[in-house]
Amino acid sequence: MTEPVIKFTRGVPPPECFPFDQIAECSNSILDRDFERVLQYGSAGGYRPLRSWLADQYQSDENWVAIGQGSLQLLDTIARISLKPGSLVYIEAPSYDRALNVLRRTGADVIGIPLRSDGLDVEMVETRLKAGARPVLFYVIPDFQNPSGMELSMEKRKYLAELAEKYGFWIIEDSPYRKLRYRGLEIPTIHELAPEQVIYLSSFSKLISPGLRVGYSIMPEALAPKFLKFSEDTYVNPSLFNQGIVFEYIHRGWLEPNIAKLKTLYQPRLDIMLQTLEQEFKEMADWYKPDGGFFVGMNLKQEMDVDNLLETSKTAGILLSDGRGFFAQKPQQCFIRMPFCALTPQEIKVGVIRLASIIREIKNQNY
Amino acid sequence: MTEPVIKFTRGVPPPECFPFDQIAECSNSILDRDFERVLQYGSAGGYRPLRSWLADQYQSDENWVAIGQGSLQLLDTIARISLKPGSLVYIEAPSYDRALNVLRRTGADVIGIPLRSDGLDVEMVETRLKAGARPVLFYVIPDFQNPSGMELSMEKRKYLAELAEKYGFWIIEDSPYRKLRYRGLEIPTIHELAPEQVIYLSSFSKLISPGLRVGYSIMPEALAPKFLKFSEDTYVNPSLFNQGIVFEYIHRGWLEPNIAKLKTLYQPRLDIMLQTLEQEFKEMADWYKPDGGFFVGMNLKQEMDVDNLLETSKTAGILLSDGRGFFAQKPQQCFIRMPFCALTPQEIKVGVIRLASIIREIKNQNY
Repeated sequence: MTEPVIKFTRGVPPPECFPFDQIAECSNSILDRDFERVLQYGSAGGYRPLRSWLADQYQSDENWVAIGQGSLQLLDTIARISLKPGSLVYIEAPSYDRALNVLRRTGADVIGIPLRSDGLDVEMVETRLKAGARPVLFYVIPDFQNPSGMELSMEKRKYLAELAEKYGFWIIEDSPYRKLRYRGLEIPTIHELAPEQVIYLSSFSKLISPGLRVGYSIMPEALAPKFLKFSEDTYVNPSLFNQGIVFEYIHRGWLEPNIAKLKTLYQPRLDIMLQTLEQEFKEMADWYKPDGGFFVGMNLKQEMDVDNLLETSKTAGILLSDGRGFFAQKPQQCFIRMPFCALTPQEIKVGVIRLASIIREIKNQNY
Repeated sequence: MTEPVIKFTRGVPPPECFPFDQIAECSNSILDRDFERVLQYGSAGGYRPLRSWLADQYQSDENWVAIGQGSLQLLDTIARISLKPGSLVYIEAPSYDRALNVLRRTGADVIGIPLRSDGLDVEMVETRLKAGARPVLFYVIPDFQNPSGMELSMEKRKYLAELAEKYGFWIIEDSPYRKLRYRGLEIPTIHELAPEQVIYLSSFSKLISPGLRVGYSIMPEALAPKFLKFSEDTYVNPSLFNQGIVFEYIHRGWLEPNIAKLKTLYQPRLDIMLQTLEQEFKEMADWYKPDGGFFVGMNLKQEMDVDNLLETSKTAGILLSDGRGFFAQKPQQCFIRMPFCALTPQEIKVGVIRLASIIREIKNQNY
C-alpha cells in the first residue's frame, strides 16, 4: 500500500475553515444594503466604510488606507512607485519568496539581512547604514514570519524603528499572521512605534478567506496620494463588493469569533509540529519555536544537496518547497519551511517522522 | 432656481441597471456548489470553468485565457512584460485615456494614429511601417470606441490584421462595448481574423456590473505563459469568487437577457443624443454616429480654448471630461466626449442644448 503524499508545500488555510455560509449571508446583506455602490466603479483606495474601520484600528486616517486585491498587489504598487533599477532594498533572510520577487523585478538591489536565533540581525543593519548603505525600503514580517515563524522582539522593533527615523528609509511591515497568536502576549507593531516610517500591510486572507482577495495597507501620509493615483491608473479600483462582504462580516461581530475558531484549529497543529520536531530533529536541525502563524522554519545542521533532498523526499511522498527561494542571496545552510495549518495533526506527525528518516538516510549515504 | 448639474463625465453604467438580486443568487449558489475552490487561493489565470467557457466563445484554449480584476489590470501586465523605455506603441487618436496612461508609464513612445471620418487612418500606419517605424503593440478599440463611438470597418480590420502579420507586431483589441450593439450587423473581431497577432481584451463590467471587477484577455499562445507567470508574481490570483458569480450568471442563461435589457435602456439614450446633436451642433461640430456603446465623440469645427470651455460649462452646470486626455499628442481640434448611458433621455436633451448654447456664447465672445 502506498503511503499518502504529505504536502509541506501547502502554506495556505485549510478550506474546511472557510465560513462560506457566513460569507453568503454577508454577500446578500451588502447587496441588499449598498448594491449601488459595491457594484459600481469606485475609489482606488477601496470601500469607504472598511477604510474607515481600518483607520480606527490602526489610529490612522481613512485617506491613508488602501485596500487591494491581496496585500502582494499593494506591495507591487509600493515597489513600482518607490524603486528603480539599482535602488537598495533590505529584506530578512529568509523571507517571503513572492515579496522577494516583487521587489527584485523592479531592478532593485535586494540584500538579505540574516535572522539570528534571537531574530533579525539589527546590528548588522546599523553597520551597513553607518557605512552609507541606506536602503529605500526595508521589508520585514515581524509577526510569525513566513517562512521562519520568527517573531521580532520589542527591543529589535524599537531599534529598527529608530534606525528608519535616523537614516530615513521606509519599513514595510507585512503582518498577515499577527492575529493568529496561539500563546504569549502581543508585541506592538513597528507601525505603532513609528507610523511616519512604516508602510503596514496585512489582509483578511488568513482570517476569513484568501478567495475574497482583500488585503490592505496603512500608509504614511507622505506616500498615500501617489500610491492611490498609481493604483487608480492600474486597475481603476479593487472590488468594493468583496470589501463590502468583509465589512459586513466585521460589522456583525463575526471576525473575532472566527479568529478564535481558527486558533483552536491551528494551535494543536503547531504543538504536534513542535513536539515531533523535538523528537525527530533535535540532533539534525535548529528551528524557532513560534507562538503563532502558519510556519516553522528550520535550518539543517549538516550540509545537504537541496535538489537531492527535494527529489528524494518527493519519491518518498513528502513534498517540500525549495528553501532557496526564500533567500535574496544563496543561504549557507539548508533551510526547510514546515507549514502546519492545512495538514491534520496526524499528517504532521507522520510527515515529520518520515522527513527525518529521509534526511538520516541521505546523511548516511554521504558517509 | 438652479438647474441640476448634468455630468457628461459619467462614462459608467447607471446603477439602476445592476442585477443585484441575480448577483446575490449567483453568489449563494457558487458558494454552495464550489466554496472550497472559490474561497481559496487559485490559478493566476482565474476560475477554470469561466476560462473554459471563454475559450469556447473565442475558439481559443483555456490556457490562453487570463481573467483579471478588470481589463485595465490585464493591459498593465501586457505593457509590463512587453514594453520598455523607448518601445514604440501605436494607439488611436483619440483613445481611452486610462489605457494611454498605462502604456505611457512604461516609458514607451506612444504615438497616436488619427481617426478619420471613415475610421482609423490605416494607410498612415502602413506608411510609417514601411519607413521602419514598427511598433511592439498597437492598441485599438474597434467596437464603439471609447471616446469616439467609432467602429472600425471590416476592410480596415483586415488591412490592420495583415499589417500585423506582415510587420510582426501585437494588436491589442480592447472591446468592452462589443455586445452593446443597438442596430446594424456585427463585424468580425480582429482576433477572429488573426488570432496569432491579437491580444483580445474585454470584460463583464458593462454587461453585468463593474463592481465585480471581472475582465479577461484571450492571448496568443506565444504570450500566455509569460503573462500568467507575471500575474501570479503580482497578485497570486484574482478573486475566483467573483469569477464564479459571473460563471454562474452565464450558466443560468441570464447574460443574454441582461444584455437585451441594457440595449432597451441604452438605445433611446443614444437616439436622443444623436437627434439633439443634429439639432444643435450641425454647424458647430462633426461627430460619428455609432450603432452601439457608451459614447459619441465630437470635434468642434472652430478653435476653442479648452480650459475656458471646461470652466464655463462647469459654471453653467455641465461637467465635461478634458478631451485632451484622450490623445497621445496634442489634438488639432477641440474634442468632446459625450457619454449617454448613465443619463436619462431628458438629461441628455437638456444637457446637449445647454452645452450648445454655452459654446455659441463662447464663440460670440471671441468675435
